[in-house]
Amino acid sequence: MKSISRLIDHIISRVNVNLKPIGRDVENAVRQSIRTDKLTKYYAYYALSIDHPWYFRFQESNLGGTYFLGKCEVDRSVVLMSDIRGDELKPKGAVAYFNGMETELYQDEIIQVVNSFLIKTLVHNHSRNSEIPEYFRILNTVAMHYSNIHGTTTEGAYLGAFSTADLSVLHNCVLGDFAYVQAGDLSRKTIRSGRVWIRKQGEFEFDYAHDPSIIDRFVTYDDEGQLTGLFSDFLKGRRSDFLPMYDSLAFESPVPVPDNAFLSRYAVVKDASSLGDNSLVAQRAYLENAKLGHGSNAQENCFIIDSQLEGLDIIAHGGKLTYTKLGNKVFVGFNSFLHGEKWSGITVGAGTIVMPHTIIDAKEPITIPENFIVWGYVRTQEDLEVHSMSLEDFSQRRVIRLGNLSFKGDGGAFIEGFRDRIEHILLENGAYYDGERSTRGHAQRTQSVSYNLFQPYLAGEEEAMFPAIVVGSR
Amino acid sequence: MKSISRLIDHIISRVNVNLKPIGRDVENAVRQSIRTDKLTKYYAYYALSIDHPWYFRFQESNLGGTYFLGKCEVDRSVVLMSDIRGDELKPKGAVAYFNGMETELYQDEIIQVVNSFLIKTLVHNHSRNSEIPEYFRILNTVAMHYSNIHGTTTEGAYLGAFSTADLSVLHNCVLGDFAYVQAGDLSRKTIRSGRVWIRKQGEFEFDYAHDPSIIDRFVTYDDEGQLTGLFSDFLKGRRSDFLPMYDSLAFESPVPVPDNAFLSRYAVVKDASSLGDNSLVAQRAYLENAKLGHGSNAQENCFIIDSQLEGLDIIAHGGKLTYTKLGNKVFVGFNSFLHGEKWSGITVGAGTIVMPHTIIDAKEPITIPENFIVWGYVRTQEDLEVHSMSLEDFSQRRVIRLGNLSFKGDGGAFIEGFRDRIEHILLENGAYYDGERSTRGHAQRTQSVSYNLFQPYLAGEEEAMFPAIVVGSR
Repeated sequence: MKSISRLIDHIISRVNVNLKPIGRDVENAVRQSIRTDKLTKYYAYYALSIDHPWYFRFQESNLGGTYFLGKCEVDRSVVLMSDIRGDELKPKGAVAYFNGMETELYQDEIIQVVNSFLIKTLVHNHSRNSEIPEYFRILNTVAMHYSNIHGTTTEGAYLGAFSTADLSVLHNCVLGDFAYVQAGDLSRKTIRSGRVWIRKQGEFEFDYAHDPSIIDRFVTYDDEGQLTGLFSDFLKGRRSDFLPMYDSLAFESPVPVPDNAFLSRYAVVKDASSLGDNSLVAQRAYLENAKLGHGSNAQENCFIIDSQLEGLDIIAHGGKLTYTKLGNKVFVGFNSFLHGEKWSGITVGAGTIVMPHTIIDAKEPITIPENFIVWGYVRTQEDLEVHSMSLEDFSQRRVIRLGNLSFKGDGGAFIEGFRDRIEHILLENGAYYDGERSTRGHAQRTQSVSYNLFQPYLAGEEEAMFPAIVVGSR
Repeated sequence: MKSISRLIDHIISRVNVNLKPIGRDVENAVRQSIRTDKLTKYYAYYALSIDHPWYFRFQESNLGGTYFLGKCEVDRSVVLMSDIRGDELKPKGAVAYFNGMETELYQDEIIQVVNSFLIKTLVHNHSRNSEIPEYFRILNTVAMHYSNIHGTTTEGAYLGAFSTADLSVLHNCVLGDFAYVQAGDLSRKTIRSGRVWIRKQGEFEFDYAHDPSIIDRFVTYDDEGQLTGLFSDFLKGRRSDFLPMYDSLAFESPVPVPDNAFLSRYAVVKDASSLGDNSLVAQRAYLENAKLGHGSNAQENCFIIDSQLEGLDIIAHGGKLTYTKLGNKVFVGFNSFLHGEKWSGITVGAGTIVMPHTIIDAKEPITIPENFIVWGYVRTQEDLEVHSMSLEDFSQRRVIRLGNLSFKGDGGAFIEGFRDRIEHILLENGAYYDGERSTRGHAQRTQSVSYNLFQPYLAGEEEAMFPAIVVGSR
């Protein structure tokens, strides 16, 4: 166990060098989260697809969990139960656009993970890194339970549980629990828990703050520093359903999967679920009595239970739905929680945007109209008055102050930006596939994925470490 | 599928370049044995131990099955369901002795497998290669079902089903089905099926020929070139017991395993089996109602059913026992078949040597005394008269002609050589472990083995090929 202990100490020191100056010591959080006695219990999974260029190199590293990786280098790292996807890496010669300027990539973009500690974390890499477009870098970052790093560089950052760093560059900053940011460079900033902050310099700024008392109910820690709260409770009862999947190498789909759709063998699909054409169910997604209409996608760590998705609906990473009906092309953002019950279902009209980190914990049946935007914390139909607005209204506003929301800037640009992104996500995931090669997306390209599994050393000085591995195309 | 087809063509051409001149075209045998439609069905397993230096490099290769490998390079190769063990490789600086001369290794010994096609084959590497002691080479070799390559270089050789190349160097030669050789350089020779030939130049020569009609019953082929016969029938009913083992990553031993013993998680252990101290059960061994006394070992591909081993017994690769009782320190050679039934059990006395490729297919109860040597084909107690001899008698003979056996040379040296080897095998396998590090063997050193699993590409041009992989210590 000597090597792994030394490695953990090393990571803590590297991250603290950056974060102690802004008041955060990660030592306790890291030590509480790594159960060293469990590190030898699991295999690490690396998924290879025939449609993505890949190259894996791991060194001095402990790695665990399941991955979909493209070109990747990892160095002196602990990466636990993380999904790091490399299916949107840019190839050599691709042109990247930043603030109206363009630059060509001199080599295939590569994911670097150095001195990192990520736990149950999704790193998704549609990269927006203007600093070095050839490298998707994470460096020394601590990302806690179920946090998302989406399309960006982070360096020396701390991401709290269920937090999301979206599209953005972070440098030496702290993201509180359940905080969501899409705000560019956050160097030396601390984002408090439950803040949902979207800023595009010179254009708009969306800023919502969940009440601390609500965050405390959903994301909190017990006396021993272990994650608890309603999100954790929600996951706990269902997490064990994933275990047999990882114990078995054989896979037979429990439901029919159309030829143009994708169901990960590492997704849980239970009861009367069904998948439409061009739909996609990512690994670690959980479906139970869920109907996914054509072109819908269920992304990593999302839960869709007793719910129907009409078609072209997006459930982003970590989204959770129970007793919810979605009309056509509804977007449910990161980590949103649409929690209906049998007698208090949730209905969402076509074209509606559910903002990331929205909690709808329905006490009564709730209906959200078509083409609306919803945010914050909603328990009743009445709550929607200060937590939603029609997209048309929102587009025409320059300033909004409504409950805990503050918006200023170009409402139209903000909504347009979301709509563009929704189209991009549908395209990328293959929702519009028509049989032509040019319209293929993840649902079609990821079908023939195969897996390499690595087991750590089980004893001796290197116990819990993995061997140095290079897997490459010829 | 293009790449794999090209690779198979390439291997056939390379092997035929060497073997056609001596009258063997391997094309048909290779094509009949590779079910290309099944090549994507299985994972390849590579076992890493903390006690053996290892380094794996696979390139342009298709690899399948389970392995225990040490330092290994593979190149442009198809290797199916093979065990290639690297646990007796010599380290840099080790001194190798050949014919009284010594030479020091300038680097760690490494296994090379180039342009090879091996199917359900064991390659075991206590190397006796005087040509280049740093390389355990196989090069372009076709080894058919359940053949053994034990401790040697082979180049451009063809090994028939259930054949064994023991300790020896082969060059461009053909080994018939169920043939066993331990005879040094066999360049440009064809060894006919069922021959058991042990030669030590200038010292002795043991030469037994199974009747062709007997080999035909045990090892034969159907009209489509598929392996059939009694050996194949024997395996067929039991092979499916291995499958669930490979589908599952979880492992719980079905029987208690003493701390100083080893049970591979890829062995089948059924019913009332038990393992004694310092015993070893290798991968792909099959135990059913089998009692293994202290220090006994069950090597790869052996079957021990309704049988008892008193202690320090050796069942070499491919040995098969039913309703058999072994006294202390009995040696059962490669591929021997001790086939008793409930009312026709086989009892073997302490210290007895059952020669490799011996068939005892008991029609009645058969008892073999202590310190005997047995060979050939035995069906009744009476058959032993011309198929066995006391070790003492044998040691004093210079010429033996008995049934199909011809022996000439120093009987004492022959028996002494066997006894030395038996001691070596017991030592190497850890049968004499007494808690001191110096007495550890495979049973103790292999305990903390972990596995890396690789899945081939499932579609596209590279379908059924594996990626290029380098796994190395840091």
